Amino acid sequence: MDENEIISLLTKMAGSLPSGYLPIGDDVAALPAKRGKLVIKSDMLVARTDVPPGMTWRQAGRKSVAMCVSDFAAKGVSPEAFMVSLGIPRSLSDDEVRSLVKGFGDGMKEWGLRLVGGDTNEADDVIVDCVMTGFAKRIVKRSGARAGELVVVTGEFGTTSAGLKILLEGAKSDPGFRRYALTNVYRPSPKLGLGLALAGYFSSAMDSSDGLAICLRAIAEMSGVGIRVDQLPHVGRRLERFASQNAYDVEELVLYGGEEYEIVATVDKDLIGEAERVASSMGAELTVIGETTVERRVVLSNGHEIRDEGWVHLA
Amino acid sequence: MDENEIISLLTKMAGSLPSGYLPIGDDVAALPAKRGKLVIKSDMLVARTDVPPGMTWRQAGRKSVAMCVSDFAAKGVSPEAFMVSLGIPRSLSDDEVRSLVKGFGDGMKEWGLRLVGGDTNEADDVIVDCVMTGFAKRIVKRSGARAGELVVVTGEFGTTSAGLKILLEGAKSDPGFRRYALTNVYRPSPKLGLGLALAGYFSSAMDSSDGLAICLRAIAEMSGVGIRVDQLPHVGRRLERFASQNAYDVEELVLYGGEEYEIVATVDKDLIGEAERVASSMGAELTVIGETTVERRVVLSNGHEIRDEGWVHLA
Repeated sequence: MDENEIISLLTKMAGSLPSGYLPIGDDVAALPAKRGKLVIKSDMLVARTDVPPGMTWRQAGRKSVAMCVSDFAAKGVSPEAFMVSLGIPRSLSDDEVRSLVKGFGDGMKEWGLRLVGGDTNEADDVIVDCVMTGFAKRIVKRSGARAGELVVVTGEFGTTSAGLKILLEGAKSDPGFRRYALTNVYRPSPKLGLGLALAGYFSSAMDSSDGLAICLRAIAEMSGVGIRVDQLPHVGRRLERFASQNAYDVEELVLYGGEEYEIVATVDKDLIGEAERVASSMGAELTVIGETTVERRVVLSNGHEIRDEGWVHLA
Repeated sequence: MDENEIISLLTKMAGSLPSGYLPIGDDVAALPAKRGKLVIKSDMLVARTDVPPGMTWRQAGRKSVAMCVSDFAAKGVSPEAFMVSLGIPRSLSDDEVRSLVKGFGDGMKEWGLRLVGGDTNEADDVIVDCVMTGFAKRIVKRSGARAGELVVVTGEFGTTSAGLKILLEGAKSDPGFRRYALTNVYRPSPKLGLGLALAGYFSSAMDSSDGLAICLRAIAEMSGVGIRVDQLPHVGRRLERFASQNAYDVEELVLYGGEEYEIVATVDKDLIGEAERVASSMGAELTVIGETTVERRVVLSNGHEIRDEGWVHLA
């Protein structure tokens, strides 16, 4: 499939754009600008590092959109439109290209986005740079935490890490947990609705895809506070069993794994009750895992320091 | 150099952003939104196809910015900010990464842009996806040409193609022309000032980096007109001598080469005098090369059809 055929696939997927949009096929994409700030994010998926064994191209396409959506969720900003810059190897078959594009379509529908443009290139590996835009009056920064607030997360940690170890290191697992962990890897679920609903309660927030430890360290450092973690957010017995089956450390899986598309945030103690009610009205859970502190250390309640480690490309 | 070191290099290069911008280092970049349309473009540079032999990484960095600037120039839109999503192989040395980033800085200064974010990944080849944004009241579309208008270009064609043939096919050349052609390859000069100044005169326009023929065919097809080219825009005797030295066809070099960062546009006959005066007041030239026609063919004045060929990735 050549460039023009891929563009025509993308144009078809994008459908008809409303008045005020520049139709796909021009040199640039253009959107009507609203008030507030334009918010824009680019996140590059590289097959070699971001597409684990067994993930379909359709899932990879959806994941490339999910990666950007998760950043918008953490910032409390509704994404509106996205573009994809593609690097495609000649060895990728037409069916595989179609699957990848179908995955973009899955993302469009799931998160109510418009596809407004793209760029296609030849490359040695499959590359998808997803570029997402939205507008916002307020953005939940990483730097807004104050001492004495609660540290919360929107979901569980360690499961994706377990899934990657099953796929990449041949870790042993019960069939049920294996299925559950692999679904977490293949179908990341950024918490967009929850992030938008809770943005008003969060003093700081960050997307957790680089790992829980990196989030805690970044929020602490950028806010000028410390963090004490009292409870690690994970699925409990099932993860503990997986860890003991493979001689892994649960704490390591939860803190340093990465690839969870959750939100790590801080909330004023006076607001936590209301924030929890909003989450539970959406069928979701907000888990308090610790507190921000005046002393600028990032530690577990036993005093052990949480290292600044996680998913760092080229490390 | 790992991801964090690269980000810190980029942050330093970006300098201090004005109030209203979200500082670099958060999950997303944010810009104050003005009235009009948000214009956004992503253009991916892949080293294997876009960085010819002898081009430095600094020139490649600048080129990745130039590629987007040229699209904004053609649309008559002033670009304001850009982000870079990077794929970096482990084999790239720290000095090479620094050179690449210096090239982004060259682009920033040359076109008055702000760098507002980025994303860094590991890849098998050097990949730079430049994402550029601006705001505009009006955008010069590809589809606005009417029959009976003049077809104009902002510069010469065929020289870059000659340069690429010297580098990639070992074509022979006089030393003077070789130097001139290679400068065209290594330092593309998008016509931003000219594009902004002339946007009000253009009924349609397109960035020419995929080649002159592709532009003429796209403008004709998207506007529902034909085009008759009476004069090919090239440097004359020097290109003719290069072509005869290597048994190339001048017409092929000029129409189907690509990598010229010029603007191909259409202008109402009543406005051409004023448009030419604006160009010449900027020390530039606008060359009339033909006319749009009712009959929907894209031809040379001798009746030969101009083929829909040029630079198409994965073709």
